[in-house]
Amino acid sequence: MSDPLAQGAIIGILGGGQLGRMLSVAAARLGFRTHIFEPGANPPAGHVADTITTASYEDEAALRAFGEAVDVITYEFENVPTSALDLLGSLAPIRPGREALRISQDRITEKDFLSGLGLTVAPYAAVDDLASMQAAVAQIGAPSILKTRRFGYDGKGQARLKTADDAAQAWADMADAPSVLEGFIDFSAEISVIAARSTTGEVACYDPGENVHDGGILRKTTVPANVKSSLRMDGVILAGRILNALDYVGVMGVELFVTPNGLVVNEIAPRVHNSGHWTQNGCTVDQFEQHIRAIAGWPLGNGQRHSDVVMENLIGDDMDRVPTLAAQAETALHLYGKSDVKAGRKMGHVNRVTGAPAS
Amino acid sequence: MSDPLAQGAIIGILGGGQLGRMLSVAAARLGFRTHIFEPGANPPAGHVADTITTASYEDEAALRAFGEAVDVITYEFENVPTSALDLLGSLAPIRPGREALRISQDRITEKDFLSGLGLTVAPYAAVDDLASMQAAVAQIGAPSILKTRRFGYDGKGQARLKTADDAAQAWADMADAPSVLEGFIDFSAEISVIAARSTTGEVACYDPGENVHDGGILRKTTVPANVKSSLRMDGVILAGRILNALDYVGVMGVELFVTPNGLVVNEIAPRVHNSGHWTQNGCTVDQFEQHIRAIAGWPLGNGQRHSDVVMENLIGDDMDRVPTLAAQAETALHLYGKSDVKAGRKMGHVNRVTGAPAS
Repeated sequence: MSDPLAQGAIIGILGGGQLGRMLSVAAARLGFRTHIFEPGANPPAGHVADTITTASYEDEAALRAFGEAVDVITYEFENVPTSALDLLGSLAPIRPGREALRISQDRITEKDFLSGLGLTVAPYAAVDDLASMQAAVAQIGAPSILKTRRFGYDGKGQARLKTADDAAQAWADMADAPSVLEGFIDFSAEISVIAARSTTGEVACYDPGENVHDGGILRKTTVPANVKSSLRMDGVILAGRILNALDYVGVMGVELFVTPNGLVVNEIAPRVHNSGHWTQNGCTVDQFEQHIRAIAGWPLGNGQRHSDVVMENLIGDDMDRVPTLAAQAETALHLYGKSDVKAGRKMGHVNRVTGAPAS
Repeated sequence: MSDPLAQGAIIGILGGGQLGRMLSVAAARLGFRTHIFEPGANPPAGHVADTITTASYEDEAALRAFGEAVDVITYEFENVPTSALDLLGSLAPIRPGREALRISQDRITEKDFLSGLGLTVAPYAAVDDLASMQAAVAQIGAPSILKTRRFGYDGKGQARLKTADDAAQAWADMADAPSVLEGFIDFSAEISVIAARSTTGEVACYDPGENVHDGGILRKTTVPANVKSSLRMDGVILAGRILNALDYVGVMGVELFVTPNGLVVNEIAPRVHNSGHWTQNGCTVDQFEQHIRAIAGWPLGNGQRHSDVVMENLIGDDMDRVPTLAAQAETALHLYGKSDVKAGRKMGHVNRVTGAPAS
């Protein structure tokens, strides 16, 4: 715990994509400035940030100057190189902390951690070569899914096994990257809990949203989730345990499968999360402001929902729908200012406010 | 009417204060970039803008470069020098247009315009010297209020007359600035209508808010206003007439007095308005996005309110209350990132969400 950040303090954000962009806006709303560190040119977050550093995560001089210029460091993606974190961590607090990053950067470390908390995860086995692949398939069976241990996102770095015969091809697809074979979970719904924890250990969760993925990419989140309220409560309790175990500071996305035997943790993301975008139009304090409040040492918003929302991602050519969406009542557009529309690229999202919560 | 602005288009904003800041954020949300033109150093809008030009409104080269760099020009204050508008108007569309600026820049022109529409305004008379001051007092009486015709805001450039004996002193206070004497209105409430009109002539209004001023500065806006629904409707209709008469494009604030004889128009502001800040937490599309939608040639949001809100300005030392406010549920802070706290300076505002609208 430490003193709350004062007005005008500078929040450093690693990564200049849409999450950094929306974090920047939330930081400004609370009177902070943001400094974005991003290797790519013209990052979306740069349009709404006070300062941008364009440099690679290997550029020690740039990292040092960035670390010395900011009061606290956060990130919009979990795959920040360890060497950069080592350097930055000596210059300013990194929130959420290194332990959350260490765990979430490696799918096996993450599953070991979650299992260690007594939470249920899919059956899993490490795969490092063809022999361990065959052993993993023998143990886990098929259908199953092979994922790289590190650097996967939006369905990238994954291969599905319909039968055990797909094992060799799936391993070949990983191009020798250390991987994990995960057993298939027969779920009735995917939900996620967006949870936050403050520097004083206060925890606040938003109501779980129900997610629909397509090709590994989130398409839609509906709040409230159409699941039993006891399961929603289970999700919130489970998220709190994860955050407390990590002495976490900030917002975390916890993805869960709903199964006949209860909730199975799919994965955790130590950052604001696509499935929490609905909070922008459903809550007084949204997930972006919640994250900024947490890392700034401020009290958290209570997470209460004033409106039901359906969030839909606008991916690639979905941008052609913007004029139609703009004309619809109770429809909030959130566009990312990306210059090129590409297939599979998240270009924006739309929150449809569907009414007041049933009381 | 013209084509809607495309993604990535650049919106030029004259003025870099808190209104420009919140317009910038709204513009980014719709995928636009902003370019702020502001004479002062370190403007609040600069923290969330893509580009800032720091130059005076007399700097023709800077104005020209700005006008050539942007796709449309808007402003956060109505007292933009005419010479700057002349130059800029030849380079990019100015929205709202010149006519709205011409009228609102001069209190007498404004009252003539409003009277010409058949709307009720306070009795008024021009004052240019001591003789016309005495004549005005003889006509209007006292109590009354003398205001400079131009460049007044937040109660500045005003002198109150309790009796006719105060006339000479009030005129002396104006330092020879052309002025207007306004008769005192015995009102039961001050309300304002935040209205918007699109490039296609579509008009949308937010529910009127009830305002409390202190020392000429807005302190609080409560929505819904505690006035008869027929009066609320009158306010909305009246605002629509003003916007249509001006072929207006953008958001306008219309300040009204509630009197036993109906509504009296106090003043109009051809821009987003402090009394519309509640929309940030009360509506899916807030007044800032509404203004950006209008000037970008997009369809308007419908102005519907999902929550009742009380907005309170944080002025000067009110900033000491921020830690307390941050800990209160359903309280949204909007801080402006101004580096120096000064007495009477608007530093931020807070929106308290007080519940769902009575249906």
